[in-house]
Amino acid sequence: MSDRLPRPLYVKVNPSDNVAIIVNEGGLPAGAQFESGLVLTEAVPEAHKVALIDIPQGSPVIRYGVTIGCAERPIAKGSWVHEELITHPLAPDLDNLPLATTVPPAQPPLEGFTFQGYLNEDGSVGTKNILGITTTVQCVAATVDFAVKRIKAELLPSYPNVDDVIAITHNYGCGIAIGAPGAEIPIRTLRNLSLNPNLGGAPLVVSLGCEKLQPGQLLPVSTLPILSREPYLVRLQDEQHRSFGDMVAAIMEMAEKRLAQLNARKRTTRPASDLVVGLQCGGSDAFSGVTANPAVGYAADLLVRAGATVMFSEVTEVRDAIDLLTARAADPTVARDLIREMAWYDDYLGRGSVDRSANPSPGNKRGGLANIVEKAMGSIAKAGTSPITAVYGPGEQVKTKGLIFAATPASDFICGTLQLAAAMNMHVFTTGRGTPYGLAMVPVIKVASRTSLAQRWSDLIDIDAGTIASGHETIEEVGKKIFDMILEVASGNKQTWADHWGLHNEFALFNPSPVT
Amino acid sequence: MSDRLPRPLYVKVNPSDNVAIIVNEGGLPAGAQFESGLVLTEAVPEAHKVALIDIPQGSPVIRYGVTIGCAERPIAKGSWVHEELITHPLAPDLDNLPLATTVPPAQPPLEGFTFQGYLNEDGSVGTKNILGITTTVQCVAATVDFAVKRIKAELLPSYPNVDDVIAITHNYGCGIAIGAPGAEIPIRTLRNLSLNPNLGGAPLVVSLGCEKLQPGQLLPVSTLPILSREPYLVRLQDEQHRSFGDMVAAIMEMAEKRLAQLNARKRTTRPASDLVVGLQCGGSDAFSGVTANPAVGYAADLLVRAGATVMFSEVTEVRDAIDLLTARAADPTVARDLIREMAWYDDYLGRGSVDRSANPSPGNKRGGLANIVEKAMGSIAKAGTSPITAVYGPGEQVKTKGLIFAATPASDFICGTLQLAAAMNMHVFTTGRGTPYGLAMVPVIKVASRTSLAQRWSDLIDIDAGTIASGHETIEEVGKKIFDMILEVASGNKQTWADHWGLHNEFALFNPSPVT
Repeated sequence: MSDRLPRPLYVKVNPSDNVAIIVNEGGLPAGAQFESGLVLTEAVPEAHKVALIDIPQGSPVIRYGVTIGCAERPIAKGSWVHEELITHPLAPDLDNLPLATTVPPAQPPLEGFTFQGYLNEDGSVGTKNILGITTTVQCVAATVDFAVKRIKAELLPSYPNVDDVIAITHNYGCGIAIGAPGAEIPIRTLRNLSLNPNLGGAPLVVSLGCEKLQPGQLLPVSTLPILSREPYLVRLQDEQHRSFGDMVAAIMEMAEKRLAQLNARKRTTRPASDLVVGLQCGGSDAFSGVTANPAVGYAADLLVRAGATVMFSEVTEVRDAIDLLTARAADPTVARDLIREMAWYDDYLGRGSVDRSANPSPGNKRGGLANIVEKAMGSIAKAGTSPITAVYGPGEQVKTKGLIFAATPASDFICGTLQLAAAMNMHVFTTGRGTPYGLAMVPVIKVASRTSLAQRWSDLIDIDAGTIASGHETIEEVGKKIFDMILEVASGNKQTWADHWGLHNEFALFNPSPVT
Repeated sequence: MSDRLPRPLYVKVNPSDNVAIIVNEGGLPAGAQFESGLVLTEAVPEAHKVALIDIPQGSPVIRYGVTIGCAERPIAKGSWVHEELITHPLAPDLDNLPLATTVPPAQPPLEGFTFQGYLNEDGSVGTKNILGITTTVQCVAATVDFAVKRIKAELLPSYPNVDDVIAITHNYGCGIAIGAPGAEIPIRTLRNLSLNPNLGGAPLVVSLGCEKLQPGQLLPVSTLPILSREPYLVRLQDEQHRSFGDMVAAIMEMAEKRLAQLNARKRTTRPASDLVVGLQCGGSDAFSGVTANPAVGYAADLLVRAGATVMFSEVTEVRDAIDLLTARAADPTVARDLIREMAWYDDYLGRGSVDRSANPSPGNKRGGLANIVEKAMGSIAKAGTSPITAVYGPGEQVKTKGLIFAATPASDFICGTLQLAAAMNMHVFTTGRGTPYGLAMVPVIKVASRTSLAQRWSDLIDIDAGTIASGHETIEEVGKKIFDMILEVASGNKQTWADHWGLHNEFALFNPSPVT
């Protein structure tokens, strides 16, 4: 039994639930008795489920007020409700979903919340001031990395107002079928990554020359007038580069011009409505859905009330709760857009002969998540209670305020990369098992679902939401803390642990079509 | 007209060809007259094709002695035979291929060629002495990169006999369907990358803890007895790591033990038969098939005669010449293995609604390659004239001597990564358009198909094969130069340009199944 929580403690989320989650660190032994009088008939690990009543074979196992599966055999009150005891229900049928049937009423607006940001010409606002160098093709990656190392060492120190230099390198651009169904996804992802608000709206481009993805397709000048004024492009195969040294010099020269422009920028006071906050979870456990994710959901509601854009994602993690989301859509068109994205992903998985049940990891299961339904219910808690106002396909640039759904895989870095392409300028990431996630382009605030993790990883986790399970803080208190930290970090007043260490994972493109 | 080549010059590869390739830098104008008497009726760019005779509509256009397509309309003698004038033929039907019908006779063995290499316990031989840190999952990548930076700065200088520290990071391990058809490809690729001869045969492993791809599945101790003696594994979520600093310290401690072992190793004289040479081309032009690739083919034949393993790859680039390869297979089983890999790839492309015609890039076409048939004929020239003795699936470890086919996509870095997994310890890369390709794990010798590229990129290209087109050297002379350079570089006596600059592209995994 835990030292810090002397009393056996469980969390029941919804009054109709017939299972609850063990809070005590290290779990509880057989015989442990709760205040309610419930006695454990066997040992139950931390974050795993205990049956609150006898559940007959075939009867629903209920958590979050919804059926997460049915009992494979009779489950006695006080026993451990583990993965094997629960049947895997079918995903909701996409043909019979409620469309905008329970649209939540608008919450009162929140006025007066601001942050200090960098206003771009296109109206977007940066939370960092970064020089971005994008690339059309994987072949130039090592050359650009070489140049970026020199830019950071030789040029960046002279431009102290610029936060970082980032090369947008990737495995796309050639050796791919550029006309394949789905090819627009990686292409628009790279385009919109290059236009992320934190890069100031005008990226530099390095091309090889002979690649399939040509600069004009990556960033069409017609749609991006700023590029016609500042056509910063180096093409390595161009005749004027008569050595590798020439190529590197050309990239550095172009970089220095841009560094001078970026260095002259100043933060100004911006309304909280200029924030585009991406939400994600990774390494989830059964606490994620009762502590970290609901607290983030509360922060999401505050952000929406303040006029900001809040983005949630991860198709395979919401697929099993899609009926709740289509009902919450602001109107039937938005609901149908949600269904379209689910259907696209069902088809994508089907072509590869897998389905959404591939989602939960061994760690999720050890963490008490029996299946994708339970994981989904926890996952959508991040999205708070606002109506869903718009849906975007993978890699599309988000232009809508309010709570939006940006369709992405759940794979952490692919999701993060797509949210960056969607114009995210702040990121909140919840974890139960623990993952040292980080992105270079925007600050990532990491929220732990358990106090034990937050304490053990005190130099990686920014906010401890485990205090909700132990009763030391409420969901609202932790949610407000997350909201406040978003504004502080967005203003550059506070640094996340990921930024402190420079823990910055590479971009991971979502390319649903074959390589050639 | 060119300054360096005063006379109009073309290259005809096979006596039956009805087209030839313009050699002169910058191409030739209308009216240019060749020694044969042929006069150009219009300007033809460098490396593009000229019709040697009148080709009636519907008649075959013949290069390399094979039909690369038929004339879309009548093509007059002396005119430019560009892409639009040639129909796209169907790929050879996989059901009616010749099986080992024209197996080339064995060439006389070459004795006495050696290099200085690092002998590993498993019998493989390294051409470099590298500390490799492999990872089970993308989540640990930034942490491992952080640790590797410190290892290189703080530890490596004390171990001067160790060449480098490489983190095998990737986008796999979680957020994927680990039981999906095709999942064995990225998993065995990561396993076999970790066992590349240049890493000394015993990799270190960093795991998160909750990921789908667990260390025991990545590197099963049962199949790798060395791992049971040296179980170097750090799992970030383990309870004993009570901070990020602890995690980094644990990785560094494990690294230092291994650095001490690696530092004690010495190069010894090894027969050339210990070489596993991977061949690849990227950014090809119409010269690739007449200069660089045949020269590499000659070197490949020398290597095979010396008992080495020579590996060629790139399914979509050999698909259209597969009838020539199945005929050349050492026996019908090998031929059927070739067909199996072609069929797998046809199906993989078909699931994504694309076909092999997606392969040639705009640069290939500007470089004079009309279509995938012409590209394929040039590509297989790299493989020389030996019988094909074995076929391996993507990411499998090669254990056979002689000329083998390792099935991979043509995408340069995916192919390179798979060839590293196949146990490659030397790499030869030909290019016509020019690409600054490099890999950290093995030396990459870059061969240019044109003298103009070799001169312009004199600090990137290791060998100029353009001298073959201009008549200054023979295929055999350049081929022998490549063979000699392989032995010199493998011995550590000579450095490639890619290694000089540290131009080292990231690993690019081939994952044919969906992300989740």
